[in-house]
Amino acid sequence: MSIRVTVWSEFRHEKESELVRSVYPDGMHTVIAAGIKERLGNDCVVTTATLDEPEHGLTEAVLADTDVLTWWGHMAHGDVSDEIVERVYKRVLGGMGLIVLHSGHFAKVFKKLMGTSCALRWRDDDSETVWTVRPGHPITQDVPEVFQVPQQEMYGEFFDVPQPDELIFISSFAGGEVFRSGCCWTRGQGRIFYFSPGHETYPVYYQSEIRTVIGNAVRWAAPVATNVYSTQSCPNSPLGWFK
Amino acid sequence: MSIRVTVWSEFRHEKESELVRSVYPDGMHTVIAAGIKERLGNDCVVTTATLDEPEHGLTEAVLADTDVLTWWGHMAHGDVSDEIVERVYKRVLGGMGLIVLHSGHFAKVFKKLMGTSCALRWRDDDSETVWTVRPGHPITQDVPEVFQVPQQEMYGEFFDVPQPDELIFISSFAGGEVFRSGCCWTRGQGRIFYFSPGHETYPVYYQSEIRTVIGNAVRWAAPVATNVYSTQSCPNSPLGWFK
Amino acid sequence: MSIRVTVWSEFRHEKESELVRSVYPDGMHTVIAAGIKERLGNDCVVTTATLDEPEHGLTEAVLADTDVLTWWGHMAHGDVSDEIVERVYKRVLGGMGLIVLHSGHFAKVFKKLMGTSCALRWRDDDSETVWTVRPGHPITQDVPEVFQVPQQEMYGEFFDVPQPDELIFISSFAGGEVFRSGCCWTRGQGRIFYFSPGHETYPVYYQSEIRTVIGNAVRWAAPVATNVYSTQSCPNSPLGWFK
Amino acid sequence: MSIRVTVWSEFRHEKESELVRSVYPDGMHTVIAAGIKERLGNDCVVTTATLDEPEHGLTEAVLADTDVLTWWGHMAHGDVSDEIVERVYKRVLGGMGLIVLHSGHFAKVFKKLMGTSCALRWRDDDSETVWTVRPGHPITQDVPEVFQVPQQEMYGEFFDVPQPDELIFISSFAGGEVFRSGCCWTRGQGRIFYFSPGHETYPVYYQSEIRTVIGNAVRWAAPVATNVYSTQSCPNSPLGWFK
Repeated sequence: MSIRVTVWSEFRHEKESELVRSVYPDGMHTVIAAGIKERLGNDCVVTTATLDEPEHGLTEAVLADTDVLTWWGHMAHGDVSDEIVERVYKRVLGGMGLIVLHSGHFAKVFKKLMGTSCALRWRDDDSETVWTVRPGHPITQDVPEVFQVPQQEMYGEFFDVPQPDELIFISSFAGGEVFRSGCCWTRGQGRIFYFSPGHETYPVYYQSEIRTVIGNAVRWAAPVATNVYSTQSCPNSPLGWFK
Repeated sequence: MSIRVTVWSEFRHEKESELVRSVYPDGMHTVIAAGIKERLGNDCVVTTATLDEPEHGLTEAVLADTDVLTWWGHMAHGDVSDEIVERVYKRVLGGMGLIVLHSGHFAKVFKKLMGTSCALRWRDDDSETVWTVRPGHPITQDVPEVFQVPQQEMYGEFFDVPQPDELIFISSFAGGEVFRSGCCWTRGQGRIFYFSPGHETYPVYYQSEIRTVIGNAVRWAAPVATNVYSTQSCPNSPLGWFK
Repeated sequence: MSIRVTVWSEFRHEKESELVRSVYPDGMHTVIAAGIKERLGNDCVVTTATLDEPEHGLTEAVLADTDVLTWWGHMAHGDVSDEIVERVYKRVLGGMGLIVLHSGHFAKVFKKLMGTSCALRWRDDDSETVWTVRPGHPITQDVPEVFQVPQQEMYGEFFDVPQPDELIFISSFAGGEVFRSGCCWTRGQGRIFYFSPGHETYPVYYQSEIRTVIGNAVRWAAPVATNVYSTQSCPNSPLGWFK
Repeated sequence: MSIRVTVWSEFRHEKESELVRSVYPDGMHTVIAAGIKERLGNDCVVTTATLDEPEHGLTEAVLADTDVLTWWGHMAHGDVSDEIVERVYKRVLGGMGLIVLHSGHFAKVFKKLMGTSCALRWRDDDSETVWTVRPGHPITQDVPEVFQVPQQEMYGEFFDVPQPDELIFISSFAGGEVFRSGCCWTRGQGRIFYFSPGHETYPVYYQSEIRTVIGNAVRWAAPVATNVYSTQSCPNSPLGWFK
């Protein structure tokens, strides 16, 4: 059965900046979506949604039909309505996968799921080297043990997130900083992957290794075992209820 | 140097219920505080704070002088103001320890730090057997490998929290349920311990093993290595800033 | 592509005990193998191997063609040769999945991979209730949130293993004990799942929920991302080797 | 009560190499021991032991009186007798802390406790930058958020160890590699910390930040809650044994 993927993006930088438009003329979401399709082929159905659509393109119906949501935001985190944040949050707890990309570390829904500030260190214009520290993990399938992103914003430690359940990638930068650049968590029944490479002014989402990682992450985060747990619906449990 | 402990409690059940008052005539907080003092002696200074005090007794000054905050709430989670929740939350990220007790699993600040619903299964009036599954951990010091709480509300799985960084205790109940009853997490620079035994109608906080666990947890959660991280104050990091 | 599963078992109890033979007339391995086939169908190819075959049925060729090995042993752990243990160990580090069942907790290869004594508490003849504490995990697919094993040897804490990377199931027993009955670890590139239900004198491996769990675990442990890492072959790394 | 620390070192390079002797004229162990004393003062009693002493200086009596053992080895891992390895291993499971330094990653006892190959990538003569990724952890007390080791052997990923329970430090090297340079695990009741900086030809163990880390680690690894668990002595548990 195909994984139903919704690629969400702010789609604001592209409208306001000539530079960003020169890299992502149809929006970053279209390139991210194409990369996932390239990696997963018929194993996925990919649609996109953006901030300025009604309900940010994330209606109840859209989310109910989404197995994995990818999230890229940066300049307009504050414009995402709390109602939609709550809606996405609940779907993640209910089993929807969530892939948070780059500056999405400050997205409301990511901070809500992490329970921390999600702050990090940054500097524009560096180069990034990405190292696998969890070989064998599905997200590393066909990913070289080390690869480089020629131009990239530096994201550095301390990254204020809970220690990841599984740490997949660590990056170094030419300036000497390090960053936990690929991190897995579970919240409720939902799987979350944060992946830091991917700035709006660099062609990161066209790069082959990056597409492989994101495609793998979609597959890893897709729900396969979602149940309705009676803890949610009926917490008061008479003696012997399960016998 | 003494650990500065603030024991917070709703102190509402005790005012409304004759039964609760018969068990905790001066409030649960006084008994919890006495237990911590009994365990830690001069290694701690313990004060209390309750919901109906101004700012719930948790002023900026009080929190600034608190190394570890213990939290018991149940019937009035909704009466805790969002401003105080935010204040406590930030102090935890900054390094203050937090011990969440029993029905505090639904406290706003705990849910905010966990990023999940914190739902669980429950049934009144059962008996609990507490097993150590992490011997050697400081929280297990002088705690028998197994002990019983004669009367206790059943709290059962699935407990919707992120997988604990360290799982210290698992409980079973006469009815057959199990529960991860002692769990550690870190958020920011702060340490969090959740401990489930302790209902308002049972004399759990008078029990020796329970007092030992809570006292140990206070010691474990006390900050020893809190720094001001420049990630928070100055995330934009020019090349070579650290050299 | 089909998962190539090798079901290994001692096949000694069945030869020596009328009682065991009455439950598993053709050996436990045949029933475990049938259960995996029942769950995974054409997604797997299942063969068996037993202790008294040459090289315990685990030749280099067999292991090279095995994606996931399941292991049941009890009375003859000491009869497994150290050479074969080393061979299995290296295949796990290289990416082969390993499912360790019940009394296999004392298998040489499991102790070698864990780095601990793997001791536990036990008592014959109890009943077990298995609780899911990690809903959403692939190993829980189609597994009820709680199910019972009517007759089962009690295995209880403290179970001396490293804290699992992911704790999937916790069991309680009628006698009040608890046990971390479903645990995941990664070693090298290999995934390991320990599952405790399954004694030789009880028909546990015929039970539907048990078969579902083991089948799911095989799927979860199957290698999808095994690489040859140059750390192993060429650790001395000249400056710029990866550029 | 003072922490009883035994600093173990091969003490072979110093005898064979003029260069090493010029850096550590009385042996690396004396400098490591002095650093711990400098950090912990009267909170510790430090003795040393070396490979060529009888029983490598690690008699049953010495280990029984050791709270925390630090381990530096490199050229002579194979000369450590299996009997002493087993002895140290059992003491760790029983609660003794173990601090493994630099090339000790290939020590027999570390590999036995990890259950993996412990392989890594290396290159002589680089410089190392050490980043804290777990602020608030006791091992980071008084450690700057980032510090540099001017000359150091490069140790790089993939480091074949089980994912650490707590990842404290990540290092980058001028050559672009990264390494999980400060890692915590628990085995049985014992705490283990691996810390990678510290080559025999560089004066790393004289550096202030390095001494602070190792001293902190000794304090963190010291046993505070070691019990005799009946799982070890009496696993067969009659019904109701704990009541």
